[in-house]
Amino acid sequence: MLFLKAKILDIDLENIVLINYDDLKNSQYFSQDRVVIEYKNKEIIAFLYSSKDLINSGEIGLPKKIADELKVKEGDIVNVSHADKPISIQYIKKKMDGNKLKKEEIYTIIDEIVDNNLSNIEISAFITALYINGMDIEEITSMTIRMAETGEMIKWEGQVYDVHSIGGVPGNKYALITVPIIAYTGLKIPKTSSRAITSAAGTADIVEVLTRVNLKVEEIKRVVKETNGCLVWGGALELAPADDITITVERALNIDPKPLLLSSVLSKKLAMGINKLLIDIPLGAKVKNMDEASSLARNFIELGDRLNIYVDCAITYGEQPIGRAIGPALEAKEALLALEDYKKAPNSLVEKAISLSGILLEMGGIAPKGEGKDLAEDILATGKAHDKFMEIIVAQGGEEKTSDEIEVGKYYTDILSPIDGYVTKISNEKITKIAKTAGAPNDKKAGVYLNVKVGNKVEKNDVLFTIYSDSKERLEKAVKLSRLLMPVKVEGMLLKRITRF
Amino acid sequence: MLFLKAKILDIDLENIVLINYDDLKNSQYFSQDRVVIEYKNKEIIAFLYSSKDLINSGEIGLPKKIADELKVKEGDIVNVSHADKPISIQYIKKKMDGNKLKKEEIYTIIDEIVDNNLSNIEISAFITALYINGMDIEEITSMTIRMAETGEMIKWEGQVYDVHSIGGVPGNKYALITVPIIAYTGLKIPKTSSRAITSAAGTADIVEVLTRVNLKVEEIKRVVKETNGCLVWGGALELAPADDITITVERALNIDPKPLLLSSVLSKKLAMGINKLLIDIPLGAKVKNMDEASSLARNFIELGDRLNIYVDCAITYGEQPIGRAIGPALEAKEALLALEDYKKAPNSLVEKAISLSGILLEMGGIAPKGEGKDLAEDILATGKAHDKFMEIIVAQGGEEKTSDEIEVGKYYTDILSPIDGYVTKISNEKITKIAKTAGAPNDKKAGVYLNVKVGNKVEKNDVLFTIYSDSKERLEKAVKLSRLLMPVKVEGMLLKRITRF
Repeated sequence: MLFLKAKILDIDLENIVLINYDDLKNSQYFSQDRVVIEYKNKEIIAFLYSSKDLINSGEIGLPKKIADELKVKEGDIVNVSHADKPISIQYIKKKMDGNKLKKEEIYTIIDEIVDNNLSNIEISAFITALYINGMDIEEITSMTIRMAETGEMIKWEGQVYDVHSIGGVPGNKYALITVPIIAYTGLKIPKTSSRAITSAAGTADIVEVLTRVNLKVEEIKRVVKETNGCLVWGGALELAPADDITITVERALNIDPKPLLLSSVLSKKLAMGINKLLIDIPLGAKVKNMDEASSLARNFIELGDRLNIYVDCAITYGEQPIGRAIGPALEAKEALLALEDYKKAPNSLVEKAISLSGILLEMGGIAPKGEGKDLAEDILATGKAHDKFMEIIVAQGGEEKTSDEIEVGKYYTDILSPIDGYVTKISNEKITKIAKTAGAPNDKKAGVYLNVKVGNKVEKNDVLFTIYSDSKERLEKAVKLSRLLMPVKVEGMLLKRITRF
Repeated sequence: MLFLKAKILDIDLENIVLINYDDLKNSQYFSQDRVVIEYKNKEIIAFLYSSKDLINSGEIGLPKKIADELKVKEGDIVNVSHADKPISIQYIKKKMDGNKLKKEEIYTIIDEIVDNNLSNIEISAFITALYINGMDIEEITSMTIRMAETGEMIKWEGQVYDVHSIGGVPGNKYALITVPIIAYTGLKIPKTSSRAITSAAGTADIVEVLTRVNLKVEEIKRVVKETNGCLVWGGALELAPADDITITVERALNIDPKPLLLSSVLSKKLAMGINKLLIDIPLGAKVKNMDEASSLARNFIELGDRLNIYVDCAITYGEQPIGRAIGPALEAKEALLALEDYKKAPNSLVEKAISLSGILLEMGGIAPKGEGKDLAEDILATGKAHDKFMEIIVAQGGEEKTSDEIEVGKYYTDILSPIDGYVTKISNEKITKIAKTAGAPNDKKAGVYLNVKVGNKVEKNDVLFTIYSDSKERLEKAVKLSRLLMPVKVEGMLLKRITRF
């Protein structure tokens, strides 16, 4: 046990205390040890770090928040001792050893994650163990339920519908068209979506060009009551908070273990009170082949059954961007155009939006099997979807706008084809990188507009795509990057010539 | 990319920058993202955290050290963008996927660990992957070599010897006897040891009761030149720094993956320039059975061969503490007593010390095979080991002392046997806990002295052990704990009586 003089620090790092570097080296403690800080029968658990200059020998630096909780004043003597390890550690080890976890064990892990009792080290070990050893459907079910229960839970009267894409394909703004089509028919569709995680624009970023997206639960309920639908940012709610914590670690490791991929999606839908859910699995993006996509779809359906969520899956084409626009404002403009006059909008976007809408209409009993898509097209073609969309936008606090009124980046550069030929490939990853370099999604007006799609014939010096940005400097960086990456591949019909020698 | 106004923080957390909590939530960044902070063509990589109160919207909090490196002053505008992930991530993933790593890949991981390029999340994933998927001897060899090469490397003229215990058994102070026995014969034995990691006293903590232990390389060389031996703290040197970092994470997870157990020991010995090494594997402590011990011994020998270190292993009895004293001063006192008059010292300690010494003398060609132990006993019995020990103590900056002169805790309590019977078990873990609660190793005079060992006959109210401490309060805590834990088990010959009913 150490007895140290409190030095109060005006910093709000949670759960961190600092002692002198030499004190630490000479003690039985190690950097990042979990310790109990005790003062007059109050105690708090924190992680120990060291400092060479800020903290003198014999002192302990306590962030204000910790000092307040302990009622410690500058110069008071506090006790420091080793804290017990969180209970989860043994269950994480059990998973490392390849064993199945019991429901109570999974609940404990999720509870300790949500309560911030687990450090990054421990969460990373859990996620790595899940990646290597996996979980069976029973374990995943327990994890999903607990992830939902530890956050906000929303209830609705009657059935509510939703559509969710597992992502990975740029330009995927179909929800702006699908949600009003569904809502028009009287089905309730309270759509929550995320901001960009690795993409250039999340659905929430796109909708935010037109209206508010950070609505609280009561506002969402009002909007859905008025319009049957909404398009809001899920992050403004406290849905399945464990998921936000595990995603941080998954991102750092560049892995997405299947148990977490499944529980991440369905815990949020369970918390949101969704009864019937359509999941869009773009092929060629996160999922590489039909077998993998089908297996994932079966997992989603089975997990849904156990959670009392009726799940259908649509495996969609995802080997190039959807539509032509990538970036918040550009995508909002394109979606609005599709709602205004769908014949003028890119076919890939319209086709995807009405196909998914069709499935939802059939799931909801609005259209007989096989007739959902036609009904959806009709609702779009007659402007009913457009009007419903405007209702939703206004109900969320925005104003009606036409696609012409949407401003995009004031600086732009056309990227031209170096040769005559055909477009053989457009890389999702490269287009995303270029749009992000131009400033998307934080610069809402930044992005890429594709003048060509795969299969198009082009001539030398035709415009392949245009990069937009509100910053000259970022535009230049993006242009440079696009010359390096060549995201749109143009090839002549003659690919290689082999001659006698 | 974000453009933020610098706010300089007087705190030396390495690699951390803070932005406003709402700014973060509304950006494409996540807590703990690896970011590049750029200012006038200088850049630095750090991890992003958020603060609600300390940092206003539009600001970024930079620890002084980072601000100095970037030459940023309060109020300057810096750029923040996503940093590339460290190269190691893909190799860590490769190990997660169960594949063998190439030498260059392992070198990259170790280099990035030493350079602080990997976060806890990434190091934890690496260690978890090693725990689950293991490494073959070739991979372990590469890891061990690189761990040594990335720190200080010490060279000697001629052969140098060492003895190392993998630990887990309390009271294991044999090195204070073995080192002078070996040094007396002219073999060089520059012994480095650690402070207590989970124990009540590391060898360095014990020696520190008698002399300085934080010697620098040049001092160690001088001491070994003068006396042929030393007993110093390895932590004062920069040996195999990757090991210190991985151990922090292993401790948090309570795991000790075999590849790291092996590389941790041998990287430090390789860096220390050891040619011949005896490894002590106490049975019943970290290693539970003879098969496990033998397998570990074979691994050490094979790894040693690949590193050009001749390794012998001794599997020793470790099911109860070695000798009777646990805690720095108590152990120093007991070791000194053995050197002064070995007949008065506990047999288990003397037996272990001369057995291990005997093996080393045979390894060094000082004694013929089978005769090392007798020679060692002779060196101890005739006081030559004692004189050599005093030489070493003085050369390291201490003064000659007798065992009587070593002070132990001024407060003490005897713990009595509740019944007549026999001592059937003494728990290593429980005795350690009690000694640590009494204050060891930071309170050097705290610890436990065992009046009995397993097999002893005791009568009711005989003293089982005595707890020492320099603090009344801690002594009371330790006494309470020992009543709860009952570390010394006394049972009558009649264990259970079954009667007719």
